[in-house]
Amino acid sequence: MSERVNTCAIAGMSDVWDCYRGELDAVEDQIRQNLDSKVALVNTVCAHILNSGGKRIRPLLLILSARAAGYTGRDDVLLAGLIEYIHTATLLHDDVVDHADLRRGRKTAGGLWGNQVAILVGDYLYCQAICRIVGFRSQDVNECLSEACRKMAEGELMQLSYRDDAAISEREYLKIVEHKTGALIAAACRMGAVVADADPALRGAAFRFGQAIGVAFQVADDTLDYAAPRESLGKSLGKDLGEGQVTLPLLHLRTHCTDRERARLAEVMEQKPNINGELAWVVSLMERYGSIDYAMTAARGFVQAAKAHLDPFEDSVHKRALHVVADYMVSRDH
Amino acid sequence: MSERVNTCAIAGMSDVWDCYRGELDAVEDQIRQNLDSKVALVNTVCAHILNSGGKRIRPLLLILSARAAGYTGRDDVLLAGLIEYIHTATLLHDDVVDHADLRRGRKTAGGLWGNQVAILVGDYLYCQAICRIVGFRSQDVNECLSEACRKMAEGELMQLSYRDDAAISEREYLKIVEHKTGALIAAACRMGAVVADADPALRGAAFRFGQAIGVAFQVADDTLDYAAPRESLGKSLGKDLGEGQVTLPLLHLRTHCTDRERARLAEVMEQKPNINGELAWVVSLMERYGSIDYAMTAARGFVQAAKAHLDPFEDSVHKRALHVVADYMVSRDH
Repeated sequence: MSERVNTCAIAGMSDVWDCYRGELDAVEDQIRQNLDSKVALVNTVCAHILNSGGKRIRPLLLILSARAAGYTGRDDVLLAGLIEYIHTATLLHDDVVDHADLRRGRKTAGGLWGNQVAILVGDYLYCQAICRIVGFRSQDVNECLSEACRKMAEGELMQLSYRDDAAISEREYLKIVEHKTGALIAAACRMGAVVADADPALRGAAFRFGQAIGVAFQVADDTLDYAAPRESLGKSLGKDLGEGQVTLPLLHLRTHCTDRERARLAEVMEQKPNINGELAWVVSLMERYGSIDYAMTAARGFVQAAKAHLDPFEDSVHKRALHVVADYMVSRDH
Repeated sequence: MSERVNTCAIAGMSDVWDCYRGELDAVEDQIRQNLDSKVALVNTVCAHILNSGGKRIRPLLLILSARAAGYTGRDDVLLAGLIEYIHTATLLHDDVVDHADLRRGRKTAGGLWGNQVAILVGDYLYCQAICRIVGFRSQDVNECLSEACRKMAEGELMQLSYRDDAAISEREYLKIVEHKTGALIAAACRMGAVVADADPALRGAAFRFGQAIGVAFQVADDTLDYAAPRESLGKSLGKDLGEGQVTLPLLHLRTHCTDRERARLAEVMEQKPNINGELAWVVSLMERYGSIDYAMTAARGFVQAAKAHLDPFEDSVHKRALHVVADYMVSRDH
């Protein structure tokens, strides 16, 4: 597999998927093999959620980070499957917290088996991952993963605390994003450097790269919630506005619009509207004041910062792939 | 503190609480000190649930197990606070799963702040505990705790799978109980032996002791759900019957009653009755067939088995205290 990767020319994301297909297939095998509970319900529900179309971006990043740091063994694939378990556990709980019925067009576990099952299977997946990870006997892996999990939970709670809070600042918004999304991606990248037995400086660089692309991804995702083509404005858009979630484009808009518009905006948020008319008005306002451009520029700034963090890594096809993935994080393609 | 403990005469549970008051107060300090999140909501909710009248039986067992294995340091107190975090995290999720509004007469976190907060604070407490525990750098502690957490999640899911299942056997019931309640108490006892640097045989003995008293506790608790004095039959009783939960006294009754009674019993369970009349009929049937005695005898049998597991421990006031706690696990006093 390694040889195949080294001869790959990586121009875009589809090349990355192609070049690392072998590794990613091995991750899928791992994900299936670790579903070994004696309780049938556990395996059924886990299989449903683990096969619901996730892109495996965290496993991919862990593997790329390990390879970029010179690793040629198989532990990265094992850890990659487990980081996807952790990610999936958080999705299960997030869907219950957000009362979501659908994820990527499929019914959520909560919708199919009830929230009880979704909560407990989330707990199970998380614990199963920790059990396996502890088996690696790496203090660095244990610390960076448990810290990431704590930060994710804290990030979700920060977000709940600020819901409907008009006073949230850009700095606080970015802190939430860093916690809820940056932490696990940072941990994935650091874990890659750890299995490669990279020096502390390289481990730190991998962590900061992951954190920055994680933030970039979330900022872009929050922005695209307002920025899809007009004609498709509707159900899948404006989710944050409807939930009273204040994200970067809205923060920008509120700072730059007129007092009258700000007052109307507050009313719209108060009503938690799902109405296309009001959402369209907010989007047109954002376009007028450049809020969407502002937020997407910020996201791209995090991507650039992330790439700079990779400087201590020697040039390689794997490092090139990490650059490509960094750009992909703020694209509309996922 | 140690000196005070060694001069204590331990006749009953109140002596245990008195003799280890210093250690237990130190655990409370630990519990408070670890609530250091920068998110105010996290600390508020954690403080509420951690101060809601739990007996700290797991922390006590961890400390007693450490002392019985000859430990005189302070790590047991630190770990004891963390095992209570894990226990509290499971309570938060259980209350959401069971749609509970009250716990020990106080409103649940879900009732006060919503299920979203209860789920996420449960996640946070669990992760915070794992973060701190990883800091102890003990592979044995990491393994036994992560394994216990996995088993608890699995136990809760087994229980959900079997809900309303008439075919559950006594063996399957005991497997659920061992997972959902025995696992963490076993881990607490083993962790005590680990901090004491006890040999593998003693660690195993502590684990089996904890597992057996955990099972004893749950069987007794399930039985007392049917066995409280007649006049108080009502809301706080018959919870399991109302939820379609098949526990040991009901399993016994179903095996021993007449076909007609069994058919009526199935109807009663089908309707998920909260009606005093039907519950009273079930309880009177259990009394007639000796189902409550049978289940309580089984619980006491687990206590005896637990005590036998302690044989490898040298005699001490701490070992005496472990015997007293074992008896306490099947009493009506908690």
